[in-house]
Amino acid sequence: MQIRRAQPADERAIAEIIVPTIRDGTTYSLDSEMTEADALLYWLSPDKETFVAEDDGIILGTYYMRPNQAGGGRYVCNCGYMTRAGATGRGVARAMCLHSLTHARSGGYRAMQFNFVVATNDRAVRLWQALGFQIVGRLEGAFQHPIEGFVDALVMYQKL
Amino acid sequence: MQIRRAQPADERAIAEIIVPTIRDGTTYSLDSEMTEADALLYWLSPDKETFVAEDDGIILGTYYMRPNQAGGGRYVCNCGYMTRAGATGRGVARAMCLHSLTHARSGGYRAMQFNFVVATNDRAVRLWQALGFQIVGRLEGAFQHPIEGFVDALVMYQKL
Repeated sequence: MQIRRAQPADERAIAEIIVPTIRDGTTYSLDSEMTEADALLYWLSPDKETFVAEDDGIILGTYYMRPNQAGGGRYVCNCGYMTRAGATGRGVARAMCLHSLTHARSGGYRAMQFNFVVATNDRAVRLWQALGFQIVGRLEGAFQHPIEGFVDALVMYQKL
Repeated sequence: MQIRRAQPADERAIAEIIVPTIRDGTTYSLDSEMTEADALLYWLSPDKETFVAEDDGIILGTYYMRPNQAGGGRYVCNCGYMTRAGATGRGVARAMCLHSLTHARSGGYRAMQFNFVVATNDRAVRLWQALGFQIVGRLEGAFQHPIEGFVDALVMYQKL
């Protein structure tokens, strides 16, 4: 699996990954009805560096990195990762997160923060913990899950 | 003291409050060198509701409210408050926060979250705690304070 910066030609593949994840509405605090164009504008916005994970010419996942705050908070980065439906369980998210940690260190970031990990997303929580993140905050009832109702969201953090 | 929605005619007074606070760089994770125009665009952006606290025709403080996340996270609001230099210690921030809590409840928000309270900002931390907020997360070394170096930032949260 190769992880590289997203190119304009990747937009179709990125949309095929991020739009179903956004529509699903169970893991990201994004408007589940946002248009595909808005989803791409969000994922590829100028404040973000966006990458894709490619295997045999097929894009299996994508992630972004951005400063989580400006000013004195700009040394902490934030990332979002999405894996293509049907490509889960193959280590795509793990590979992207490991890539992002290396990229963040080389870019001078001092920490990585996930602002809003939905607490019911067990697989993600366990993976981030295995990769060195700690749960440093819990936001009680902060996320309206489309099936489970209001559930907690977690703040996860790792010094680099 | 009257707290009301900001009007276009308030821009000058708002700039006089927010620009020095941003330049100071000790309490907000915003670029301390941002232009006044950018500061106003930020404080009055369309995703925010912006208010001013006025006493005897003089604007002593301003705050904004916005959804802290989109989608399933949109029931938690985020606010930022700034008081005019020289008007501190007169209960302006307290009055604005109390106003915001009432406004948030009436707007259907279920919680209020401060994402990044600089831990050295004792007065703010104590005030928010007195008004019902809890420290629900600590981001170790997340803020580069211009004098004190890297200090922690706090996530504070209150269900409404």
